[in-house]
Amino acid sequence: MNDVSIIGIGKTDVSEHWETSLRHLSWYAIEAALDDAATTQVDALYVGNMLAGRLSQQDHLGALVADFAGLRGIEAVTVEAADASGGAAMRQAVLAVKSGLVETALVVGVEKVTDETGSTVTEAAATGLDADYEMAHGLTLAGAAALMMRRYMFEYGVTLADFAGFSVNAHRNGADNPLAMFRNRLKAERFTAGPAVAEPVSLFDMAPLGDGAAAVVVTGSERAKDMVPQPIRVLGSALSTDTIGLHDRQNVLWLAAAARSTAAAMAQAGVSHEEIDLFELHDSYTIMAALSLEAAGFAAPGEGWQLARDGAIEREGQIPISTCGGLKARGNPLGATGVYQIVEVAQQLRGQAGDCQVPDAKIGMAQNLATTGATAVTHVLAC
Amino acid sequence: MNDVSIIGIGKTDVSEHWETSLRHLSWYAIEAALDDAATTQVDALYVGNMLAGRLSQQDHLGALVADFAGLRGIEAVTVEAADASGGAAMRQAVLAVKSGLVETALVVGVEKVTDETGSTVTEAAATGLDADYEMAHGLTLAGAAALMMRRYMFEYGVTLADFAGFSVNAHRNGADNPLAMFRNRLKAERFTAGPAVAEPVSLFDMAPLGDGAAAVVVTGSERAKDMVPQPIRVLGSALSTDTIGLHDRQNVLWLAAAARSTAAAMAQAGVSHEEIDLFELHDSYTIMAALSLEAAGFAAPGEGWQLARDGAIEREGQIPISTCGGLKARGNPLGATGVYQIVEVAQQLRGQAGDCQVPDAKIGMAQNLATTGATAVTHVLAC
Repeated sequence: MNDVSIIGIGKTDVSEHWETSLRHLSWYAIEAALDDAATTQVDALYVGNMLAGRLSQQDHLGALVADFAGLRGIEAVTVEAADASGGAAMRQAVLAVKSGLVETALVVGVEKVTDETGSTVTEAAATGLDADYEMAHGLTLAGAAALMMRRYMFEYGVTLADFAGFSVNAHRNGADNPLAMFRNRLKAERFTAGPAVAEPVSLFDMAPLGDGAAAVVVTGSERAKDMVPQPIRVLGSALSTDTIGLHDRQNVLWLAAAARSTAAAMAQAGVSHEEIDLFELHDSYTIMAALSLEAAGFAAPGEGWQLARDGAIEREGQIPISTCGGLKARGNPLGATGVYQIVEVAQQLRGQAGDCQVPDAKIGMAQNLATTGATAVTHVLAC
Repeated sequence: MNDVSIIGIGKTDVSEHWETSLRHLSWYAIEAALDDAATTQVDALYVGNMLAGRLSQQDHLGALVADFAGLRGIEAVTVEAADASGGAAMRQAVLAVKSGLVETALVVGVEKVTDETGSTVTEAAATGLDADYEMAHGLTLAGAAALMMRRYMFEYGVTLADFAGFSVNAHRNGADNPLAMFRNRLKAERFTAGPAVAEPVSLFDMAPLGDGAAAVVVTGSERAKDMVPQPIRVLGSALSTDTIGLHDRQNVLWLAAAARSTAAAMAQAGVSHEEIDLFELHDSYTIMAALSLEAAGFAAPGEGWQLARDGAIEREGQIPISTCGGLKARGNPLGATGVYQIVEVAQQLRGQAGDCQVPDAKIGMAQNLATTGATAVTHVLAC
């Protein structure tokens, strides 16, 4: 696959944007992306969002954001797949452009977690789990991650300290990203001393939820070449699902949706693991980073954590991850996260990642997961 | 456009399904559609839903419904555009099949309004309006319709009684539909005596919200011909938006999104108004039916109500609408409504609409609106 390209990217910082509304956040990211693409001609808008209905009492973001961004009248819808909404919105834009019915598509991922008018963000985010079989018993996203992490520690004989490398790497990279939510470094020896959120998941293990928006403009590759100096090609795009509830899986330590969507996207792209220069994975919790590396085929089951221990995930390592801070340090704006990942990979491939730059990055992969991996969206991009 | 076809349809009755969960409703409709298409091979699922997050504490319906329907692992997302979510999900399926990346797509529209665990359905549905400028002042969907109706009555010098024909026609047709929510007939002289909901909108003027699910299977037209005896071709598909808030429109009596999406879909289809044998429009309120007929070009501005007065909208009339009861009598399951419309048009074109059959129907149009018409999705279908 080689016929859809990214021609514009934009994003806000991830933070607690108390003074900025959902529509303004969206617009800031869109304005940056349209400026970057040097166009205002957009045919369709795909909004990735998870919680605006519950937290801001605002659904129907397609019409709202299109109009507020000066694009009144265009095709516009919201795409939702819990915290994989951003990646899923990107996927719809790729399908739309590939269909030939939409020439230029805009994707914006936006989340405003500081609007807690209807419920707390912890309650609201838990709607991504199985309401009848998980949430009804009080399970939260952190609780679900804790179940997976505890099982991993038991199965493979590792300890909490063995996950430290993921957070240390993320914070080291985030310190170089001016738009990151947390720019402080984290010492490995401090990692295990984090206050517990849901044991063994601690504050230093879990990505912080934040407000933010990121946007991407895509169009056909032939057209893209004439429009911008550095179009980024979408070589692979795949979305896959798994059981929504953990209890229905044969193996809770195997992210089947991530494995399927990685294999499909890499096959479309025709690239091998060795050719991938960076992998923006979904490090909502360190356990999810370890399991993602395993499902994507960069490590054998039970060995994902070793890539963190050995430094392979660092920017100069074998398979750099969280190169701009990842969810852990850049921040996790839920339904916007998947679009941040695409923007960050595109920056790397353009050589515009500043202090976060991975040397000589030519091919990058972004993978957005929902909850315990029940939805996985994978994109392979190339310069 | 002629390369996407419908090969399967299914639906539940619209009702208060207190004993049936969201996932079961979805599955009943999907099972019927897959049986109808005689296939279990589906590559992607698009769920049209508006309120599950708020009413059932359940987001992430893509993964949930795919797994529950026996389709574990497939691509699956939710598409949301308030009460136009069903039509918007159909639109994504058309784009996906047209892209060539998805061979067979399944659409399910589902809504469970009797799950009022988080808020009332009236509050929840108002999230489709502008939260900051409309809902914050207490506006509801019925209230917004009342503003438009009052203005229409003032501008064109008509009275409440002049809208009676829409509800009388819908109930007459609904009486013939075994899956309709209300099968009672309504006398024109009773119409103005309905209890007020938001004056001048009354109980006999407003479509009842109900639970329900409807499903459609689509694939490439060449393939469809080999799979089923009566594939229904998607000749036109278009989605357009308007300002989310009424106050931003130059003319609150002109549904600009509906007009644009109708024109685009009819142009793709290459059909004239005279060729359209039935029009399943979004009669959430009688005023919306009148304005839809005007925006779609079946009546001049201010004259849509005359088509109801003159009987032109009846099944034997010039442009039959609400042929199976419409939203008013079949019931309005919000995010599922747009898929019911597609299913009903397909039944008509197959000659399988039973007592609701429009004689000799060859081309039909379905139009799903959100709120005050801020999103409009139009599909032109043909046998």
